[in-house]
Amino acid sequence: MTLCNRIVALAVVSFSLLSCSESVTTEQSSKKYNYVVIFADDMGYGDLGVYGHPTIKTPYLDQMAAEGQKWTNFYVGASVCTPSRAALLTGRLPIRSGMAGEHNRVLFPDSEHGLPESELTIAEQLKEGGYATACIGKWHLGHKEQYLPTNNGFDYYFGIPYSNDMDNVILQNANSYQSYFDFWKGPERQNTASFNVPLMRNTEIIERPADQNTITKRYTQEAIQYIKRNKEKPFFLYLAHNLPHVPLFASDDFRGKSLRGIYGDVVEEIDFSVGQVLNTLKDEGLAENTIVVFTSDNGPWLIMNSEGGSAGLLKDGKGSTWEGGMREPCIFWSPGNIKPGVIADLGTTMDLFATFSSLSGLEIPNDREMDSVDLSSVLFENKASDRNDMFYYRNRELYAVRLGEYKAHFITQGAYGQPAKEYHETPLLYNLNVDPSEKYDISTEHPEVLAEIEKLVEKHNSKMIKGEDQLESRTPN
Amino acid sequence: MTLCNRIVALAVVSFSLLSCSESVTTEQSSKKYNYVVIFADDMGYGDLGVYGHPTIKTPYLDQMAAEGQKWTNFYVGASVCTPSRAALLTGRLPIRSGMAGEHNRVLFPDSEHGLPESELTIAEQLKEGGYATACIGKWHLGHKEQYLPTNNGFDYYFGIPYSNDMDNVILQNANSYQSYFDFWKGPERQNTASFNVPLMRNTEIIERPADQNTITKRYTQEAIQYIKRNKEKPFFLYLAHNLPHVPLFASDDFRGKSLRGIYGDVVEEIDFSVGQVLNTLKDEGLAENTIVVFTSDNGPWLIMNSEGGSAGLLKDGKGSTWEGGMREPCIFWSPGNIKPGVIADLGTTMDLFATFSSLSGLEIPNDREMDSVDLSSVLFENKASDRNDMFYYRNRELYAVRLGEYKAHFITQGAYGQPAKEYHETPLLYNLNVDPSEKYDISTEHPEVLAEIEKLVEKHNSKMIKGEDQLESRTPN
Repeated sequence: MTLCNRIVALAVVSFSLLSCSESVTTEQSSKKYNYVVIFADDMGYGDLGVYGHPTIKTPYLDQMAAEGQKWTNFYVGASVCTPSRAALLTGRLPIRSGMAGEHNRVLFPDSEHGLPESELTIAEQLKEGGYATACIGKWHLGHKEQYLPTNNGFDYYFGIPYSNDMDNVILQNANSYQSYFDFWKGPERQNTASFNVPLMRNTEIIERPADQNTITKRYTQEAIQYIKRNKEKPFFLYLAHNLPHVPLFASDDFRGKSLRGIYGDVVEEIDFSVGQVLNTLKDEGLAENTIVVFTSDNGPWLIMNSEGGSAGLLKDGKGSTWEGGMREPCIFWSPGNIKPGVIADLGTTMDLFATFSSLSGLEIPNDREMDSVDLSSVLFENKASDRNDMFYYRNRELYAVRLGEYKAHFITQGAYGQPAKEYHETPLLYNLNVDPSEKYDISTEHPEVLAEIEKLVEKHNSKMIKGEDQLESRTPN
Repeated sequence: MTLCNRIVALAVVSFSLLSCSESVTTEQSSKKYNYVVIFADDMGYGDLGVYGHPTIKTPYLDQMAAEGQKWTNFYVGASVCTPSRAALLTGRLPIRSGMAGEHNRVLFPDSEHGLPESELTIAEQLKEGGYATACIGKWHLGHKEQYLPTNNGFDYYFGIPYSNDMDNVILQNANSYQSYFDFWKGPERQNTASFNVPLMRNTEIIERPADQNTITKRYTQEAIQYIKRNKEKPFFLYLAHNLPHVPLFASDDFRGKSLRGIYGDVVEEIDFSVGQVLNTLKDEGLAENTIVVFTSDNGPWLIMNSEGGSAGLLKDGKGSTWEGGMREPCIFWSPGNIKPGVIADLGTTMDLFATFSSLSGLEIPNDREMDSVDLSSVLFENKASDRNDMFYYRNRELYAVRLGEYKAHFITQGAYGQPAKEYHETPLLYNLNVDPSEKYDISTEHPEVLAEIEKLVEKHNSKMIKGEDQLESRTPN
């Protein structure tokens, strides 16, 4: 971000700290769209009714999809939490910002760093354009003060700074995955919310451990209040639920209610929350002036068995560069503006940066490589998407590339090591439109496609400056 | 069927043969619902947009689901064609009628028999109740005259008598599955419709080979004409598409149009066909007086690779007793009558017999074991389904049983032999609501459920009279 912007942002943060509420921007424009991004955590491609789940009932999201656009080839920037969130907020592959780590795939409570100050977030961008901005929910881009949302363009923050399972007890016991999983099976998991995950308002810890039984409900109330408070000015609300990431919690109204078990209870509470947000927008007369996007940060955590979600017909899940790890349900909604339908074109969370900027008349920065494509002509005119490629990084290596309907895997590896990491001299090649489950390797039939993808990779690599690994430094207690 | 009914049925068939058109029943009632059953062939649980497919676009079926009930735990009576169709039409497990074979899983062009005369079809039942009845599409319950639709309660028949791949050339070359598949890759597959599958009107062959490029379109036209001709009287239309069973054909308007390749072209043409049928019902003022059901005969034929469909998140496909073989997309539609929503209750194609009979005031026969449950209170009042179990037969053996949310596998076997057949001393047990993909065996945790299922099986077996194998006799040329 430019120095000038930075000063403005810091000034607003200071104001925010003093007043304990979001900034009051004087620049208002009733013609500007509001943006609401609802981001679930570890929800799979197949976990919503309208994406094919048989026993998780999501009437509000189904209705949102019927009224809006249901995207079926929509990606996140990484298959795990921290880099995926960095991608959404910066419009850049996390390898560029350094939010993709070689040894640590995400930030931990003992991590020292977070999203570098040099990055420009979509919140900073919109704030610069006169928007009120809020982050409600999970952050996971650095829990130390300088990395918190209020120092990254958000006027207001209410939520938890890292994953909902990142508790001292858990981490101290998690010498291996097995002990990590065993922990969840113990009594601590069943009956208490005694996790030392902090709940914060702006930069202050207001509850520790955060009571996660009511956390989805409270995020929703915060979101509704925020919308009502800001209805006279353009706003950007980033509502990032920390569920259905394990451990799973649902409020009394939802616990034990879903056919799908606790995982279904949690998704159904998020669905209800979406309904409440959309109804608030309607009731406040904001629906036609607001764009709402619903998606998730990465695929389902399959090793959690039935406490993890489903990628539907896609292969593998969270942590992998198979489709199940990085393709997500995504619904765009804005009655009267967005043309309803099913969109099989390519899109990514990184594209929200360019799309919102374009719609709000803001220029995207030209001092850095961006990975953000303006999707507004797909949304508003049903035109073909300008995005034709997708780069699948794992940690700091490029594993796979999609070009049009084809995806080449240079490296494959199961989400958690099995099957083992394998380099493919001749990349595996799949036609994702015909074969979304990545079953039928067609590399020998289409050397010309591989050649084209190799060229694309060369071009990509020639411009790649990998940001310094921000996830490496940790200070264990 | 009773002797009296039989005589009436035969008389009508004779009339039909003479006039080459459907019978004109004098008994008419504007208060009776019309029934349209649209039956696809080898379409998987995951092959429609509203069931989660990313690149097959099915706007008409999606809309039908939005206006009607989308069922997510709806089964067929067998995982392959002939017995599945027998189940739908008789309301009985095919093991009872003898339409489940020990060595032959389906009927072939050299099969000698078909659905036994002693069976009462839903067409015979409704015809007795004053309905005009038609079968348009694939039959596959016996191609010799006495087994054809016109001798099984249908006034009118237009379609092919067995599967669309059952051609002399194919069968003579099909010494193994491999040669069978190789055949499809050959030039015969690509450019010609030169299959000696006959197209019939009533009992007459009118085209051979049937031109399958236009067959879906012609079935649709026949269905529309039939609806228009019969709008003054109650009718039952069984529209059984012979696609997307391989070999795949689409008309000029659809071939090459889908992102999903030829399989998608075919499904999209069927989707368009459904739209045309529903629109015809609306245009003719029949929508509020007609119940339309869309489903398929069994899961996707996975060994056909990308020319086979997808079971979505369900396991395995056609031929197996895993969920992917026998759970199907199913949409019920009747605007103003059927309460829209997603239904996760159990239902089966066999239940159409009791449901239609109940709605039309017809008693179901009491001289035989029926496997048919009246679903009308689910459809019209959103009450819980009275069906709580499901029996999964393969050939003539009981492989698995579902009771409520639990499914026990006594025997498992991959659709085509691999993994090999295995008897489980302690049955595998899955909770299908929580674990629809049948991943997490919970048999050791729930011996009480297994005990309950064992009891159910004992009761089931005590009443089981297996019908003589009607699929065994073949007369090879």
